[in-house]
Amino acid sequence: MEQPSHLDDPGEAISLLEGGVTSPLGFLAGAARAAIRESPPDKLDLGLLYSLQPCAAAALFTVNRVRAAPIVVSERHLADGRARAVIVNSGCANASTGERGLGDAEEMARLAAEKLSLAPREVVVSSTGVIGWFLPMERIRSALAGLRPSRDGGPDFARAIMTTDTVPKSIAASLSYDNHRYLVGGCAKGSGMIHPQVATMLVFLTTDAPVQPQFLRESLRRAADASFNMMTIDGDTSPNDMVLALANGAAAGPGDEPIGAGHRAAPLVEAALARVCTHLARELARDAEGASKLIEVRVEGAADEADARRAARTVAGSLLVKTAIYGCDPNWGRILTAAGYSGAQVHEEACRLYLQGVRVFAGGLPEPFDEPALREALAAPEVNIRLDLGLGAGAATAWGCDLTPEYVRINAEYTT
Amino acid sequence: MEQPSHLDDPGEAISLLEGGVTSPLGFLAGAARAAIRESPPDKLDLGLLYSLQPCAAAALFTVNRVRAAPIVVSERHLADGRARAVIVNSGCANASTGERGLGDAEEMARLAAEKLSLAPREVVVSSTGVIGWFLPMERIRSALAGLRPSRDGGPDFARAIMTTDTVPKSIAASLSYDNHRYLVGGCAKGSGMIHPQVATMLVFLTTDAPVQPQFLRESLRRAADASFNMMTIDGDTSPNDMVLALANGAAAGPGDEPIGAGHRAAPLVEAALARVCTHLARELARDAEGASKLIEVRVEGAADEADARRAARTVAGSLLVKTAIYGCDPNWGRILTAAGYSGAQVHEEACRLYLQGVRVFAGGLPEPFDEPALREALAAPEVNIRLDLGLGAGAATAWGCDLTPEYVRINAEYTT
Repeated sequence: MEQPSHLDDPGEAISLLEGGVTSPLGFLAGAARAAIRESPPDKLDLGLLYSLQPCAAAALFTVNRVRAAPIVVSERHLADGRARAVIVNSGCANASTGERGLGDAEEMARLAAEKLSLAPREVVVSSTGVIGWFLPMERIRSALAGLRPSRDGGPDFARAIMTTDTVPKSIAASLSYDNHRYLVGGCAKGSGMIHPQVATMLVFLTTDAPVQPQFLRESLRRAADASFNMMTIDGDTSPNDMVLALANGAAAGPGDEPIGAGHRAAPLVEAALARVCTHLARELARDAEGASKLIEVRVEGAADEADARRAARTVAGSLLVKTAIYGCDPNWGRILTAAGYSGAQVHEEACRLYLQGVRVFAGGLPEPFDEPALREALAAPEVNIRLDLGLGAGAATAWGCDLTPEYVRINAEYTT
Repeated sequence: MEQPSHLDDPGEAISLLEGGVTSPLGFLAGAARAAIRESPPDKLDLGLLYSLQPCAAAALFTVNRVRAAPIVVSERHLADGRARAVIVNSGCANASTGERGLGDAEEMARLAAEKLSLAPREVVVSSTGVIGWFLPMERIRSALAGLRPSRDGGPDFARAIMTTDTVPKSIAASLSYDNHRYLVGGCAKGSGMIHPQVATMLVFLTTDAPVQPQFLRESLRRAADASFNMMTIDGDTSPNDMVLALANGAAAGPGDEPIGAGHRAAPLVEAALARVCTHLARELARDAEGASKLIEVRVEGAADEADARRAARTVAGSLLVKTAIYGCDPNWGRILTAAGYSGAQVHEEACRLYLQGVRVFAGGLPEPFDEPALREALAAPEVNIRLDLGLGAGAATAWGCDLTPEYVRINAEYTT
């Protein structure tokens, strides 16, 4: 049973492209301004995403015990693994808003459903913004009335979900096998950038591949585990975090089997999803509030993968590591220390540590290095930390950013 | 069997006093300058603490998997629950220094033992400072030769262990029952103040009560759990952290029973130890690097104590809470959010949240409050957060500090 060679290496059959949620076939999107909070008059704050066909839908929701109203409503709507539209606003999180908040989230779904001739439960609701405020439902209603979803509305949709993000974040990936070509698109906002009261990561993913709901759920979980769950900005998680994937199968031919776990295209679909998620996670870390650098932490040689994940995330999240990187300080002791308290198995003598490719610690002892040169290398916009724990085969990568005075300023001076 | 009434309320029989490690009878201390690193010529950096009598000894060591040489050596020396002296230096952590570092730590113990006519294993060794440097053993040897421990050497000892602390931290407590009066003394440095490579908390406690080794161990563990383990500055723990307690029984009369778990003075001894530890923990948080305010987080009504501890520590450690407090921002959403992701059981509708005594959230909804007045209240040097989870009887208090641009500056601009 011969297979095309690129199936042996999923990477070859996948490429990243400029694009976003409307790149895959059959998805329309658009945005409008509801003036949900004071912001520049051109700030879009209401987005609508719509699939011309029914979709398999999978979502990951915040693990925070305090859950915003839209999370509660969306989880209910997604219980059957199907959805066709998303309505999302920025500026107000509709969190800590009690019964009235739940009613408002349901009303948002109803308004979108009415506009698109869907049932309310086919609509996912999402909000990000200030906690403890009620949504201005009248303004949302009238803004929605004027909103026109279209094939090229992806960029506007990506802008509408922004809060303190400085740039919109969208990407697409194509995957091909035999004579099929499917697209995966995505956009994201505000991961752990953790605006004062807007501490939300929202990610919307679309694909025109005919993915089965269960496989979509499983592969989304794995892709998020290797990307968004390995990204740490400041350790806070919000009541509103949501990662949603919609698969409408619009690019499938008439006789094409739905792609489930056993399907030969399944690894490709999952790899494409993972590529999109990893790209977005890196962009979120890079654009984190006040950040001046992206930090990538690769841990290898861990006793197992769980240990590698622990160590990588802890190093990426250490305030001391983050401030050292901000200051271009090759302060390897802090990195080793963070790995040491991560909970991962660590034997100092077995560790090898590299900063921007320069080995700074091995065999239980510091290695001599050219300090001025390494300081200069640490001034780059991306800093790579590689820690080989020398114990096993566990490996993982985490992303974070430096901690800057600007982060403190933004988060302290914000006024409720 | 009548008992003096103050035994019913240990608090009444205990009072805090000015003092430190040499307040209890039979303890001598002193300090010298070994010029371990560049520092002002009057910076003491070598300390010696000595008991005229043998002591029961108990210690808590760092949980970091990366452990400095003095930790390894001291744990070995303390295996029998006895010790009589401590030699400690600041400026160099003797961490990540391999075999040579272990030899240096053993040599420090030997030098102190020789000077005091003790066996080396009666000496505890402790270091704090830069990771990855070797100790200047010659300078330590000659500085030690000139060091004269005395009854009033406690303040110098407390200064010798300082790194980036801005003030020395010492305290004593007296406890009395029947016609006995015992003293507990202590000093501490640098808790989680987490200087760049000097991320160490050292705490030394002394008492002239005749405490049994096992009870000393147990009560120290409980006292630390309610104090140092509830203090969070930036989440980093160092390879050098140590909390040591020495009990020499010097104030005991000839026929006095050793104080073990069943002894009627046991609750008093434990309460006095806890008072000293709590005082030092608060002072450490207050003096944390770059901090401008002490934050006290009281969680009540948790499902159990473990949940209360989790929630209190997570709130105290949240960067968003810490920056909000720095900015005098009554940003209650961040506090609720942090409790929500702490792992503790949280039902938003059951929560009541108070900032400086002002209720800001209850019954699932924000409460109106006088914002300018609360902002002004938050400008105080101590900020109190009280969160009643409304679920059970679990309660705990955690201490932290605000996150300031100064913290980032100090930790970024330090040069290796």
